[in-house]
Amino acid sequence: MATGRATVLVEPNKLETWDVPVVDPEPGGALVRIVVGGVCGSDVHITTGEAGIMPFPIILGHEGIGRVEKLGGIETDYAGVPVKPGDLVYWSPIAACHRCYTCNVLNETPCDNSRFFEHAEKPNWGSYADYAWLPNGLAFFKLPDGADPLAVAALGCALPTVLRGFDRCGPVKMGEAVVVQGAGPVGLSAILVAAQAGARDVIVIDGVDQRLEVARSLGATATISLKDSPEERKRKIYDITGPGGPSLVVEAAGVLPAFPEGVDLTGPHGRYVILGLWGAIGTQPISPRDMTTKNLTIAGATFPRPKHYYEAMHLAARLQDEVPLASLVTHRFSIEDAGRALDAVHKGEVIKAVIDPEHAAA
Amino acid sequence: MATGRATVLVEPNKLETWDVPVVDPEPGGALVRIVVGGVCGSDVHITTGEAGIMPFPIILGHEGIGRVEKLGGIETDYAGVPVKPGDLVYWSPIAACHRCYTCNVLNETPCDNSRFFEHAEKPNWGSYADYAWLPNGLAFFKLPDGADPLAVAALGCALPTVLRGFDRCGPVKMGEAVVVQGAGPVGLSAILVAAQAGARDVIVIDGVDQRLEVARSLGATATISLKDSPEERKRKIYDITGPGGPSLVVEAAGVLPAFPEGVDLTGPHGRYVILGLWGAIGTQPISPRDMTTKNLTIAGATFPRPKHYYEAMHLAARLQDEVPLASLVTHRFSIEDAGRALDAVHKGEVIKAVIDPEHAAA
Amino acid sequence: MATGRATVLVEPNKLETWDVPVVDPEPGGALVRIVVGGVCGSDVHITTGEAGIMPFPIILGHEGIGRVEKLGGIETDYAGVPVKPGDLVYWSPIAACHRCYTCNVLNETPCDNSRFFEHAEKPNWGSYADYAWLPNGLAFFKLPDGADPLAVAALGCALPTVLRGFDRCGPVKMGEAVVVQGAGPVGLSAILVAAQAGARDVIVIDGVDQRLEVARSLGATATISLKDSPEERKRKIYDITGPGGPSLVVEAAGVLPAFPEGVDLTGPHGRYVILGLWGAIGTQPISPRDMTTKNLTIAGATFPRPKHYYEAMHLAARLQDEVPLASLVTHRFSIEDAGRALDAVHKGEVIKAVIDPEHAAA
Amino acid sequence: MATGRATVLVEPNKLETWDVPVVDPEPGGALVRIVVGGVCGSDVHITTGEAGIMPFPIILGHEGIGRVEKLGGIETDYAGVPVKPGDLVYWSPIAACHRCYTCNVLNETPCDNSRFFEHAEKPNWGSYADYAWLPNGLAFFKLPDGADPLAVAALGCALPTVLRGFDRCGPVKMGEAVVVQGAGPVGLSAILVAAQAGARDVIVIDGVDQRLEVARSLGATATISLKDSPEERKRKIYDITGPGGPSLVVEAAGVLPAFPEGVDLTGPHGRYVILGLWGAIGTQPISPRDMTTKNLTIAGATFPRPKHYYEAMHLAARLQDEVPLASLVTHRFSIEDAGRALDAVHKGEVIKAVIDPEHAAA
Repeated sequence: MATGRATVLVEPNKLETWDVPVVDPEPGGALVRIVVGGVCGSDVHITTGEAGIMPFPIILGHEGIGRVEKLGGIETDYAGVPVKPGDLVYWSPIAACHRCYTCNVLNETPCDNSRFFEHAEKPNWGSYADYAWLPNGLAFFKLPDGADPLAVAALGCALPTVLRGFDRCGPVKMGEAVVVQGAGPVGLSAILVAAQAGARDVIVIDGVDQRLEVARSLGATATISLKDSPEERKRKIYDITGPGGPSLVVEAAGVLPAFPEGVDLTGPHGRYVILGLWGAIGTQPISPRDMTTKNLTIAGATFPRPKHYYEAMHLAARLQDEVPLASLVTHRFSIEDAGRALDAVHKGEVIKAVIDPEHAAA
Repeated sequence: MATGRATVLVEPNKLETWDVPVVDPEPGGALVRIVVGGVCGSDVHITTGEAGIMPFPIILGHEGIGRVEKLGGIETDYAGVPVKPGDLVYWSPIAACHRCYTCNVLNETPCDNSRFFEHAEKPNWGSYADYAWLPNGLAFFKLPDGADPLAVAALGCALPTVLRGFDRCGPVKMGEAVVVQGAGPVGLSAILVAAQAGARDVIVIDGVDQRLEVARSLGATATISLKDSPEERKRKIYDITGPGGPSLVVEAAGVLPAFPEGVDLTGPHGRYVILGLWGAIGTQPISPRDMTTKNLTIAGATFPRPKHYYEAMHLAARLQDEVPLASLVTHRFSIEDAGRALDAVHKGEVIKAVIDPEHAAA
Repeated sequence: MATGRATVLVEPNKLETWDVPVVDPEPGGALVRIVVGGVCGSDVHITTGEAGIMPFPIILGHEGIGRVEKLGGIETDYAGVPVKPGDLVYWSPIAACHRCYTCNVLNETPCDNSRFFEHAEKPNWGSYADYAWLPNGLAFFKLPDGADPLAVAALGCALPTVLRGFDRCGPVKMGEAVVVQGAGPVGLSAILVAAQAGARDVIVIDGVDQRLEVARSLGATATISLKDSPEERKRKIYDITGPGGPSLVVEAAGVLPAFPEGVDLTGPHGRYVILGLWGAIGTQPISPRDMTTKNLTIAGATFPRPKHYYEAMHLAARLQDEVPLASLVTHRFSIEDAGRALDAVHKGEVIKAVIDPEHAAA
Repeated sequence: MATGRATVLVEPNKLETWDVPVVDPEPGGALVRIVVGGVCGSDVHITTGEAGIMPFPIILGHEGIGRVEKLGGIETDYAGVPVKPGDLVYWSPIAACHRCYTCNVLNETPCDNSRFFEHAEKPNWGSYADYAWLPNGLAFFKLPDGADPLAVAALGCALPTVLRGFDRCGPVKMGEAVVVQGAGPVGLSAILVAAQAGARDVIVIDGVDQRLEVARSLGATATISLKDSPEERKRKIYDITGPGGPSLVVEAAGVLPAFPEGVDLTGPHGRYVILGLWGAIGTQPISPRDMTTKNLTIAGATFPRPKHYYEAMHLAARLQDEVPLASLVTHRFSIEDAGRALDAVHKGEVIKAVIDPEHAAA
């Protein structure tokens, strides 16, 4: 029986490489040979156990692109596009049940019955692996012809998350002044989308010079360093935007002090949007009265829907030649070196790291 | 020279009754004989000085209905409706300049050059007075035929404020479950609007039984007492709404602890809307992470536009026979007794107090 | 082997009553004993063949309420509510595939792979029958406790259609003036929703006095007869609304001349919304220039989603005691008399006709 | 007394050059020395009399940029920006009254009391002239430092019209496929805005090769010639967009046959937006039924508000170095040669013609 390797988190902070059986797809499903498995910041929190109890052991990895190996009696992807073995596909890692209040009445995510992970001994769609077994109902999409898998993988689930956030909280408006707090994958995705949507100013705040440089390559029009004091940061931003200030501020830093600064930076009648799957735990002070006197809106959003994966894939494929997306993937690791990959992400040494099953172990 | 009485705040906490000249309207303006001057909770904060520096001395009162005495060469109100001396009119107390960024580019309020008050020695639109001199540009509207001035005055500037809030933050949706924190004028207005807009549940929280009773008369479908613990309040609310919780919570209490409770009460994917001209000063803790994981939106809005005064007036006139609006005016005071009126509002002894120039001084 | 009766359209205009096997539900599906099968105007067009080629023979009926007989291994309905044999359920007659562009990228209806009807010899969810076999994926919802099946059935698929229409084209706004053309099920549903949403005026146009009377019972504030000339109709409507005219006109007549009249009736800056599953075939003249000079929006919408069935069911159940919904069902027919039911609908003799399996054949 | 030249339309089709007095500004107003007066297609219709009765004689020209000569006691423009003699300003040619139903209740345009033109013997803001006298209330905005007046003038009132259209009918969405019918100033403005807003495809249809070339310079991603048959045009468009078709089609051709073609081109669930101040008079057939089965929205919009002039000016100034806006002004004419300018516009010989008071008469 054929087997493939997989990085298994057997308990918090304990990783192993297992050989797991390669299982034929169920009807409606697909078996995929992984080309790239993205290493997401959330994976670090999952590994440490901060993200909550999991059905251990689990195979890590919720970002993936692969080649179809076998199909479970289907001939099209989840957008109705013909698909066949050998095609590159990209997937949303969470299957909606289509039978719950959130799916059918709210038309929202996350589904009340979301399965994020499957036990490592069962057929599994974790992407730190040679193969992913996509169950029936897990939306996957064929990459458009000519799409570079690395360009699509580069922003990982952050790009769908940002598209979902602007879908829910209102789109970036052409001509508006935008500030993005943080230039990790979520921040970089917000910068890319704001720039593409015609924002007049896309100002990014981060503490790492290399990230600010990358931000510029994705469309940031100005960068502000965390080395400046908060007062200097605000002054520099308002020098650019004028006295009306930014009409949209995006929290993509995931650290607590970003919140009051973001509220303060947002101009009157503006909105402050908090995006991401993972935010720091804790509270920050807010003045309810300022929210009314400034006509302020604060909105949070999480968990993309299949449409956001579809749109992210097409956006990346469309932009891959004009924006250096693929080069955001600064580090590749073998399946066996997943622990080192997580460590590099944790330490902020990478722009984007991926698991590449064909990469030689270090 | 004709004169009229006016309640003048000469400095914080110091009221006097003055005789001020009755001045002919300027071109485009109107001179109005006051029928009812509403006493707003903000007036209390203005009187104590909490609301900030004013161009003392000022004539109090920003809510008014009166009869046109003279018109400054105009023949229609600010909605194009013919108007003549003797007609009842209702006005927005703040003139927009139509020459600033907020007026012309944002199309928002408050205008960057808003004049809230005029020095008491100048022609003046303060409504604790026999006459109001409405300057050119201060929008006034003729009451529809048969409208009861008390019904229109009953909710004061709270009803336009609430209409503006839902205009900015999104309307109450037919069939949704709504919670309103606080049953003062802003809360009662939110209850009225939510009920009229077809909310399935309109649940109100307040500490005063009489207010809860009034809330029911305006359309509240359930009332919750502050005597219950926060846990009991939440349980009672979720018993009514079901596990999805309220999709809209309105902060109309104006006290700090209402904020975290409101955030907590709001169901997933819901919105928390903070309405009002005056809120308690201070901060409250908020968890940025909960905002993303709940897909929560929090929005504040203040300062109505003329359209909201127009709509409030028509809404009150349309409902005056089916909802006991006029009876919300529980207390009338003479111009000379304005101090007692403010005191009664401050102590929460009234549902709504008004200054009635024809009322005999106590 | 148990069998049940069903009305089968074997070819256009040819109905037969068949005994069909009662089949156990598939996993995820349900077997339901029909309580009420609604007779929809579309069924007339399906029967005559106007609605296009069908997989004849088919079992008629896409509106149904029934009692759960057996469940295919599931314990909740499509909103996550516990369900068990004996419970009353209501369903959306079209299963979404969740695998096409319209389902997953547009998040719209109808699904590219919609199955409206199944061949009569296969397990079948046609509702002119003793039993409906609901396949896995066909959304059904448990009626709330105390809900009257007739109240839910009374407006048939018209109420979900109208809810979907306002969902897509924008909701009825509290306080706006609404005109509804036609008082058949779609028009009556629009009247009900407009009244519940707080429309100031709900003016209905129809040619049948009895329908206008029913319209009033659902919330119409004024009725206009088609016996009046178009000029008189417009004058009467504008006498009510004032010179701004209606801001929302709903086309629910399904006849061609309604269209130019509706465009003309709509006030400046207003919107004209065309709702329904079936409209008359043909064209009408429109002036593109008038659309710009009036700032007019015209929008059409069709095919409800499961959420609209859920919302329609809850709306009907909530209103059943204050609005005479159940009494809209003016005619009941046996399964064998389906032809007579269709005839009565075609001739406009009924407000709403239903197939009642327990009704004795005439 | 100082005088300036002006092109006066004394009656339909009869132009004269007059010397008119240069009048000091009224309080709140401004006197401006014209730098560029745009020649708009509407001016042709005004000149022929098709656009309706005017208060003849009138000074032509509603598009203008000039230098402030004198200010009527004001120190800021209509966005609150400091302004002084010598500054370049741009204006909206229609003053809102701020006293009518449309201004104050609908917050829409055009104002019920709009004054488009003033009698030529009175102080006048017609822009085919040496001077424009801007009355109090006519919104003007200071050009940002470094802005090229020709870049701002190049798209004339078409760019504000398009911004207003997308403001009212919904913005261009990042990533959507857009078709623009017609590459005159309105079409070119729509192309520019769609491209800036991140449309995936911006496909333009026109009959003149030079216009299609210009369209590409503003961001069109594909061009389709009217020389192709309608069937070929549709096929080419759908080859680009894929089977979903364009989700947004913009009618900027102003000719009747464009309408049914535009409706047909619009993909399911899409919208067809008709923009412009002037459209061909007449009707076209439309199928109401197709509007429901396609979930189609058709919307028209006209008459910009001051905010759209402000935004257009800033957009042009921001893009002037990356998009060849100024070069769209292909023809300059003297005041005396206004008739020739109108003729050239009528014949489609120009991309944009302007009146330049300093240009020598031919």
